[in-house]
Amino acid sequence: MIHRHAIALAALLSLPVLAAADQAAPTPTAQQLLARSAAAEWRTPDPDNLLVMQLSTGRVLIELAPDFTPLHAANIRTMARAHYFDGLAIVRVQDNFVTQWDDPESDDGGDPGKQRSLGKARHTLPPEYTRPLDPKLPWTKLPDGDVYAPEVGFSEGFPVARNPASGQEWLVHCYGMVGAGRDIAPDSGNGSALYAVIGQAPRRLDRNLAVIGRVIEGMPLLSSLRRGSGPMGFYADPSKRTTIESVRLAADLPTARRPAVEVLRTDSRTFAALIEAQRNRRDAFYTVPAGKIDLCSIDIPVREAATQPRHQP
Amino acid sequence: MIHRHAIALAALLSLPVLAAADQAAPTPTAQQLLARSAAAEWRTPDPDNLLVMQLSTGRVLIELAPDFTPLHAANIRTMARAHYFDGLAIVRVQDNFVTQWDDPESDDGGDPGKQRSLGKARHTLPPEYTRPLDPKLPWTKLPDGDVYAPEVGFSEGFPVARNPASGQEWLVHCYGMVGAGRDIAPDSGNGSALYAVIGQAPRRLDRNLAVIGRVIEGMPLLSSLRRGSGPMGFYADPSKRTTIESVRLAADLPTARRPAVEVLRTDSRTFAALIEAQRNRRDAFYTVPAGKIDLCSIDIPVREAATQPRHQP
Repeated sequence: MIHRHAIALAALLSLPVLAAADQAAPTPTAQQLLARSAAAEWRTPDPDNLLVMQLSTGRVLIELAPDFTPLHAANIRTMARAHYFDGLAIVRVQDNFVTQWDDPESDDGGDPGKQRSLGKARHTLPPEYTRPLDPKLPWTKLPDGDVYAPEVGFSEGFPVARNPASGQEWLVHCYGMVGAGRDIAPDSGNGSALYAVIGQAPRRLDRNLAVIGRVIEGMPLLSSLRRGSGPMGFYADPSKRTTIESVRLAADLPTARRPAVEVLRTDSRTFAALIEAQRNRRDAFYTVPAGKIDLCSIDIPVREAATQPRHQP
Repeated sequence: MIHRHAIALAALLSLPVLAAADQAAPTPTAQQLLARSAAAEWRTPDPDNLLVMQLSTGRVLIELAPDFTPLHAANIRTMARAHYFDGLAIVRVQDNFVTQWDDPESDDGGDPGKQRSLGKARHTLPPEYTRPLDPKLPWTKLPDGDVYAPEVGFSEGFPVARNPASGQEWLVHCYGMVGAGRDIAPDSGNGSALYAVIGQAPRRLDRNLAVIGRVIEGMPLLSSLRRGSGPMGFYADPSKRTTIESVRLAADLPTARRPAVEVLRTDSRTFAALIEAQRNRRDAFYTVPAGKIDLCSIDIPVREAATQPRHQP
């Protein structure tokens, strides 16, 4: 029984121990697949699309998705460059739903007169909830269907749904995805109030809000925060808020201070192998492989970049 | 802009503000539907199936599912009655996955010689991963399909998948569901090591582990814990563990100290109305109703019991 939990938990992590000798061809583990990956299968996020949000507890990295929500990406860049977010706060943590940050003076109970200026950023933006389906965008389609959309898969490192009949595609509210809060009017969002999904994918929000990117590092800093005790998870006590020290675009940091991270390309062979290994896991622990996989159950691997550039031939 | 966030967030909670006057027949909110519910639509969990886990931060209530995992329920009752869990700890919190508690001496790095005795509880149990499909159990089938199973719905307050072809049904690993850790051998689980799902439903675990029940109160106490820094989210530093003060069966508490909670029946009209309202939300905020719903996106309402018994005629 000594190894009971380590083994059980390895399986739970889908990084099971190697199969027992009586099992042929066990499914490779994620670690094994990643160890075999080629350097060219990894990409360095464009520093113009990488937000570095500094909390007192650590660093959160958010990759923007300008091919899906370009006007929001531009507005958020404008705000980050004006240091708009510095000193704002995480104002809401609702269990199994979202962590949200914005200007507390813009929330109920705040003082509109003290609200921070958006500066050169736009106050309203067209609702970038969907975009015209572009067959030229990379597309890794999943084979097992989806409850909500005709097709789902990955594009440029993001979970995406497609509807060929309507000619639309959109980013999906999976765990770790970041969206822009808004008022009743569909054009009332501007990227100054952002939320990250910290629970079961709230797919009913898809096509109703602009999803602007994905947290690629630091999700535990957002997901493990104390839940707010007020309505909808707002902090009833302002002292419970987490202050945002700063938000910078990686492109605006000195090269030496830019985050050195790489993301596995979602159109790579290794990513496809990871998906297949999770769909049909055969090893000593699993008695029944799922045979299927849901879009939001798939992690997109991120790693620290090697000291030497990996993309040199 | 004053109300921007309150409104946007009401919608995010799927408790939107009342629709604007120019919208006909807005979807009722969850609050409205629950306010109209009948007393008989609520049930008081059987105190023989209700675990009360006391942490220093508060109370976690877990409802056992003896119609699905009867031997695990019996073993856990035996352990709770022997105060087996008192003084054990939450040893692992892995982001977007599980929070787990057990005897730390049984984990890697523990001292098997100091491992707590299971007393009269069984050390191994048959693998209660699925059960024969019983058409006599209540069944609220969902209409929108599922990526993993032929049919999904609710039975006796739990999310359930069914395969009529194989004649099996099983509890599903949705957010808040509780399972029993085990070793490689399928019969090596016994209920002494338990985990609760704190992220996107890890459906690949379905039919591979015994799901023993559901957290009906206190999920934030489990989901907002500091993530473990060791492999698979184990706490590398034992001082970061959360101690379990006690676990008792409600039936063993004096009547006055039993939790006074009620759970909405999943075969009630109000529950069906809640599902439909979430599938097709039409109000001032939502521009596109999802038209579908995923099993693990549905909350099962729990409330404090009224002072006067509600189930009297």
